[in-house]
Amino acid sequence: MTLSLDQAGRQAWQWLEAASAFSETRDSVREGVTRQCATDEHKALLAALTEWMEALGMTVRMDNAANLIGRHASAEPGARTLLIGSHQDTVPNGGKYDGMLGVILPLALVLYLRENDIGLPFHIDVVAFSDEEGTRFSSTLLGSKVLAGTFEPEMLEAADDNGVTLQAALEAFGCDPARIPQDRYRPEEVVAFLEAHIEQGPQLEHASLPVGVVDAITGIERHQLTIHGMAGHAGTVPMALRRDALVGAAEVIRLVDALCKETDDLVGVVGKIENAPNGVNVIPQTTTLSIELRSPRDEVRRRARQRLLEQADAALKSLGLAFDHSQTYEQAAVQCSAWLTATLEEAVRDSGVEPQVMFSGAGHDGLAMVDLCDIGMLFVRCREGVSHHPSEAIEPEDLTAAVEVLVHACRRLASGRPPA
Amino acid sequence: MTLSLDQAGRQAWQWLEAASAFSETRDSVREGVTRQCATDEHKALLAALTEWMEALGMTVRMDNAANLIGRHASAEPGARTLLIGSHQDTVPNGGKYDGMLGVILPLALVLYLRENDIGLPFHIDVVAFSDEEGTRFSSTLLGSKVLAGTFEPEMLEAADDNGVTLQAALEAFGCDPARIPQDRYRPEEVVAFLEAHIEQGPQLEHASLPVGVVDAITGIERHQLTIHGMAGHAGTVPMALRRDALVGAAEVIRLVDALCKETDDLVGVVGKIENAPNGVNVIPQTTTLSIELRSPRDEVRRRARQRLLEQADAALKSLGLAFDHSQTYEQAAVQCSAWLTATLEEAVRDSGVEPQVMFSGAGHDGLAMVDLCDIGMLFVRCREGVSHHPSEAIEPEDLTAAVEVLVHACRRLASGRPPA
Repeated sequence: MTLSLDQAGRQAWQWLEAASAFSETRDSVREGVTRQCATDEHKALLAALTEWMEALGMTVRMDNAANLIGRHASAEPGARTLLIGSHQDTVPNGGKYDGMLGVILPLALVLYLRENDIGLPFHIDVVAFSDEEGTRFSSTLLGSKVLAGTFEPEMLEAADDNGVTLQAALEAFGCDPARIPQDRYRPEEVVAFLEAHIEQGPQLEHASLPVGVVDAITGIERHQLTIHGMAGHAGTVPMALRRDALVGAAEVIRLVDALCKETDDLVGVVGKIENAPNGVNVIPQTTTLSIELRSPRDEVRRRARQRLLEQADAALKSLGLAFDHSQTYEQAAVQCSAWLTATLEEAVRDSGVEPQVMFSGAGHDGLAMVDLCDIGMLFVRCREGVSHHPSEAIEPEDLTAAVEVLVHACRRLASGRPPA
Repeated sequence: MTLSLDQAGRQAWQWLEAASAFSETRDSVREGVTRQCATDEHKALLAALTEWMEALGMTVRMDNAANLIGRHASAEPGARTLLIGSHQDTVPNGGKYDGMLGVILPLALVLYLRENDIGLPFHIDVVAFSDEEGTRFSSTLLGSKVLAGTFEPEMLEAADDNGVTLQAALEAFGCDPARIPQDRYRPEEVVAFLEAHIEQGPQLEHASLPVGVVDAITGIERHQLTIHGMAGHAGTVPMALRRDALVGAAEVIRLVDALCKETDDLVGVVGKIENAPNGVNVIPQTTTLSIELRSPRDEVRRRARQRLLEQADAALKSLGLAFDHSQTYEQAAVQCSAWLTATLEEAVRDSGVEPQVMFSGAGHDGLAMVDLCDIGMLFVRCREGVSHHPSEAIEPEDLTAAVEVLVHACRRLASGRPPA
């Protein structure tokens, strides 16, 4: 009485479809999935997950930050724990897979291990983190910070748009926030943290690969640049006497784009622009830009920043424009553990897939979990690289491939075989 | 008992100061002057102008479009009429001089002619056009179109922000809109139309000249360009796979600026930009730009448009971006009459000033008056080229220079001397 990988993949698909129904929005095709932390939808989802986990013989508990944790216990005495999971929450009108894919895939893994009587020398704790997107309380990585022991109690005072604090929301959800410190794992009891997540980008689709291995989670910095020109009548000021803030902004947009296109391991964007007075017949006076740079290598990002600021300074000066600059955000890159990345590469190869190693341009729970233990990450192809949108989509057969990779990874971790 | 040009200039300054008090705003330094068509401020101004004109022995009447016309009559039988004037209305929070300067300077001319017993073979009709800016009823050039006989009665149905129609506003102002067609001048009774106006640009200030002669009023065209990229996560889409609408917009902004900088008699601006979704961490999906081109030579403007659209098409295609384009406005350039431009040049030279000939990048009442008669225009230096703003400023002595030019111009027109 065995279960095939195909069957495990199909079960994952059904669980994902079922999970998408726990949403504020009712029509997942047109409106997508909206499920925020400590809401009725969150509660209903956890009830379903609990049922599915218990049917797999798992021991299920919810911690005081509303993380749901199901244990597939090892028979070995003194076993440590492999944490596998992702977040249950979505952005407003998000998709079915961002987050939830990484909760359901390890359940399909447990299903496969159980039905095929594959024993492991470590427990598997499948985690549905309560809140990673941070949309409701501006509380990014809430769930994973609690497990890693880096949660800051001041965060409990954060309020949602209706004035409900995180403290009150968790209490209403059946949690005791005062006991959050007790929910942390101890490093010595943990093997590692693995996360599966949709790629949120188009690289795997372009390479025709179902999965890919992540070796780093990007560092991010953001800047605000305000360019000061001089407003004037668009008909009466000769071109040579103009100081047009938007012309300066155009130069900076091109510099950001060119620098990122010519630098390996660097992406960047000017995503936001505000122009004033923004009239069809007025020379722009003030233009404000956001600049974001991301790289898995902090030194690449910092060098690029330096070069960009020098180039922007020169370009704007030559146009007679002044500017203010402020850095508004910086987060260092986080490296996945080399041995886990190598293990996942081998597991991908075991599955008959050419391993592609890539960095994650988006943030993930690993950013917090790295304070607890070694981390590894597997990406699953998503259609057209779309995420955070109702049209988020995956191929059903990629679930089978991902389950297979997780099975091979567990076998390699169990055997203690070093990566080839 | 004669009056000096200096005295006439000083009187003009005093009249301009007095006129600036007829404003919705009370503090002309901080809030500027706001005087719209057919308002209480307009009525109070016309009462003051009437008093000043009558003190100069002029015959004053208001027509049915609320234009005020004061006649300084010639002693010669069968004399024709030289029209000189500008508009009384301002943009909201405008300055003291845009428009009003061209109403007051001919009064100072009449004062000088009268006090120095200088007779002319033509009447001078000084006109305070009721509405040129068109801010209240979106009715640009209302006053001058009435005198030229091109006023379209449908315009009477236009309503202001409070739902008051132009028809109702004129009636409340004491006009009979049904009789507007009778207010037109007949071409055979008119010598020409002259207008003095602040430059609204910095060229005279840069050349250290008090006045300049206008040889054309610019043609204008406007376009809207919407660039279609593909939104995406700013961290997960590799640079090579991006289609960033704002990067395309930056190229177009540079193309407009470069083309205008390298083309004589052409100015242009991208004044307005709207970017969506305009988030710091989202690749821009859709960016909409306004493009404006102005030239005193229509063929220059049309060639530039053609070239710009070709360049933008190539640049956007090479970035993988689609775009929609529509032309939203076009107004042909209007040439000042060569003989009047030459006469004004000579009059400037008579005044000891080097004549600088320039085109007007802004529209003026001449755009409508050209349908009635030959037109000529004199620019007066304004500080830093600023207009439509409370900080609009002129130098008092430039009023003296402008009065002197008008006196010389009248003498040359009276003598029938052809320009040298």
